[in-house]
Amino acid sequence: MPTIAVIPGDGIGKEVMPFGVQAVDVAARRHGLDVEFDHFDFASAEYYQEHGRMLPEDWKTVLGSYDAILFGAVGCPAVVPDHVSLWGSLLQFRRHFDQYVNLRPCRILPGITSPLRDKGPGDVDFLVVRENTEGEYSNSGGIMFEGTQREFAMQETVMTRVGVDRVMEYAFDQAMKRRRKVTSATKSNGISITMPYWDRRFSAAAVRHPEVETDQFHIDILTAHFVQHPEWFDVVVASNLFGDILSDLGPACTGTIGVAPSANINPTGEFPSLFEPVHGSAPDIAGQGIANPIGQIWSGAMMLDHLGAEDCGKEIEAAIESVLRAADTAVLTPDVGGTGNTETLGRAVIEAL
Amino acid sequence: MPTIAVIPGDGIGKEVMPFGVQAVDVAARRHGLDVEFDHFDFASAEYYQEHGRMLPEDWKTVLGSYDAILFGAVGCPAVVPDHVSLWGSLLQFRRHFDQYVNLRPCRILPGITSPLRDKGPGDVDFLVVRENTEGEYSNSGGIMFEGTQREFAMQETVMTRVGVDRVMEYAFDQAMKRRRKVTSATKSNGISITMPYWDRRFSAAAVRHPEVETDQFHIDILTAHFVQHPEWFDVVVASNLFGDILSDLGPACTGTIGVAPSANINPTGEFPSLFEPVHGSAPDIAGQGIANPIGQIWSGAMMLDHLGAEDCGKEIEAAIESVLRAADTAVLTPDVGGTGNTETLGRAVIEAL
Ligand SMILES: CC(C)[C@H](C(=O)O)[C@@H](O)C(=O)O
Ligand SMILES: CC(C)[C@H](C(=O)O)[C@@H](O)C(=O)O
Repeated sequence: MPTIAVIPGDGIGKEVMPFGVQAVDVAARRHGLDVEFDHFDFASAEYYQEHGRMLPEDWKTVLGSYDAILFGAVGCPAVVPDHVSLWGSLLQFRRHFDQYVNLRPCRILPGITSPLRDKGPGDVDFLVVRENTEGEYSNSGGIMFEGTQREFAMQETVMTRVGVDRVMEYAFDQAMKRRRKVTSATKSNGISITMPYWDRRFSAAAVRHPEVETDQFHIDILTAHFVQHPEWFDVVVASNLFGDILSDLGPACTGTIGVAPSANINPTGEFPSLFEPVHGSAPDIAGQGIANPIGQIWSGAMMLDHLGAEDCGKEIEAAIESVLRAADTAVLTPDVGGTGNTETLGRAVIEAL
Repeated sequence: MPTIAVIPGDGIGKEVMPFGVQAVDVAARRHGLDVEFDHFDFASAEYYQEHGRMLPEDWKTVLGSYDAILFGAVGCPAVVPDHVSLWGSLLQFRRHFDQYVNLRPCRILPGITSPLRDKGPGDVDFLVVRENTEGEYSNSGGIMFEGTQREFAMQETVMTRVGVDRVMEYAFDQAMKRRRKVTSATKSNGISITMPYWDRRFSAAAVRHPEVETDQFHIDILTAHFVQHPEWFDVVVASNLFGDILSDLGPACTGTIGVAPSANINPTGEFPSLFEPVHGSAPDIAGQGIANPIGQIWSGAMMLDHLGAEDCGKEIEAAIESVLRAADTAVLTPDVGGTGNTETLGRAVIEAL
């Protein structure tokens, strides 16, 4: 019996989570799978206000005992500065649970209009595989000569051979299950040390996988290609920062940024993996009950996939697509052109299951 | 009499440069301005093959005596690795001539179809102001434990107070001549030292310019906004890397990546500024005579602006727009849907002058 730690977090995270949990529960039960959910209130502004920190001291043991984590969104800048809330929760999970792969599927869904002219459902379908524990997100560096004209800030990007190789291996494995192509995001013409290193490790990985086609683009022109030729891509492997950028830009190009899911995976299975929508806590619309719950539900589907219940995951995805295809404005949330709310859309997906 | 150093460089740089020079010459002469051009063959693969380096030893003195540099494109990976050709020429110029601002206008032109659904001429018009000498493009770092499993690469991002403040000042000045809004590109929620520092300097600059509206976005969601709401932006100020990304993505969104110009400016006037098209040397189409010369011509217009001959610059821009608006397929190059070539399009713009 898989056990899930449920962390709604802040803002709309709290509003969409019930539908994520229910969708997973319904799909799993139908297949005779009993999933157990435990809810936690930490990793939120309320918890921070009460305890002066984002997580309980024993969070590693508590969360470490679960099979997976279903996460909503964290961030409430009015109460806690973002770098405190994020480095105090989500980024800790990724690092301590060694969730070294961040997976973000990008495809145009039925009923969703891509902002790109002439692109519709079926035209675009790629997967961003992001390194999720090192690279540009370091905590090495500092500020010198503070308060003077000579003041400067410095921060180190760190790419380890182990860290780079393992995420590339994962990307090539994913490509074998798809269209057998991996594109690497680089910037070795400008970032002169770490990025040429990234390129060398990519070449080494390519040699180990001769059955996979490879290419690479500098990040500047790669973002342009996402807009101009998104159909070129199958699997895109990228550093922490470049993966972060591409996995917002990708869903923006497919028109799915409000509904895209993501998986933070510890492939060895030593620690729980974490599943969360790409959208954040959205303080601007929190409390109105109009947030789109699909990103949370779809993240639940990725979680079921990861737990080995691929059929359940596929059924949830099919339910999402059928509701979007039906395009009933009374059901859809405003972000996808509807007049409905979180409740109407969440229920519709669960009923379609 | 302004003196211009002309450096065509590699690939299509050589093919488009003659039209850039001629457009500048014709526009300037009409206003009684005599511009002197000297051509240089360095910063090219041929020069490298002959001399084993990209530039002559006395390049600083030679180029330093000109009022401006009109540059084509450098890069010929079949002969010289990109990091050698770029760090041996273009990136040297930017740094040694302290061209600390890189300016890239993004707007949808008449006759050009933006890849964004529902966006047409007049809808989008913003300016990316990129820091051009420091930040993520450092040469500080290295590789440790090379050849072992513990191997890692490290590279430092460096942001100085002087370096950040001066580019922000420039961005606010530009905004005063436009719609009085500056957006800062950040990633202070993930890049925990240099980016919060960037934010602090941006706030300080905003306080000095209360008449300018400001906002800021993390780079991930900012790239999404470029696709979804490009009309939101007026001036966007960004670090070296983020500016590099945004100034390819911006022109991709406006459909102008093949024709966009850029200016590498030394605002103090101590050193020459450099003007170059955003496109590169494009080895894939070099030699076919089909490269679009508009980026080079438009860069010439920015150069005339910078030299104080704004009227000449405006006339060149108007000529470009009138040729694009006429949309004569026999004249236009293939990249903008024509059957013409560099020569037909270049001549048409010059005739329209
Ligand atoms: C060629 C490369 C080093 C350069 C950069 O990254 O600055 C280019 O992309 C540019 O934008 O001028
Ligand atoms: C919130 C932020 C720190 C985070 C990141 O940059 O990793 C987010 O943008 C994401 O992509 O999950």
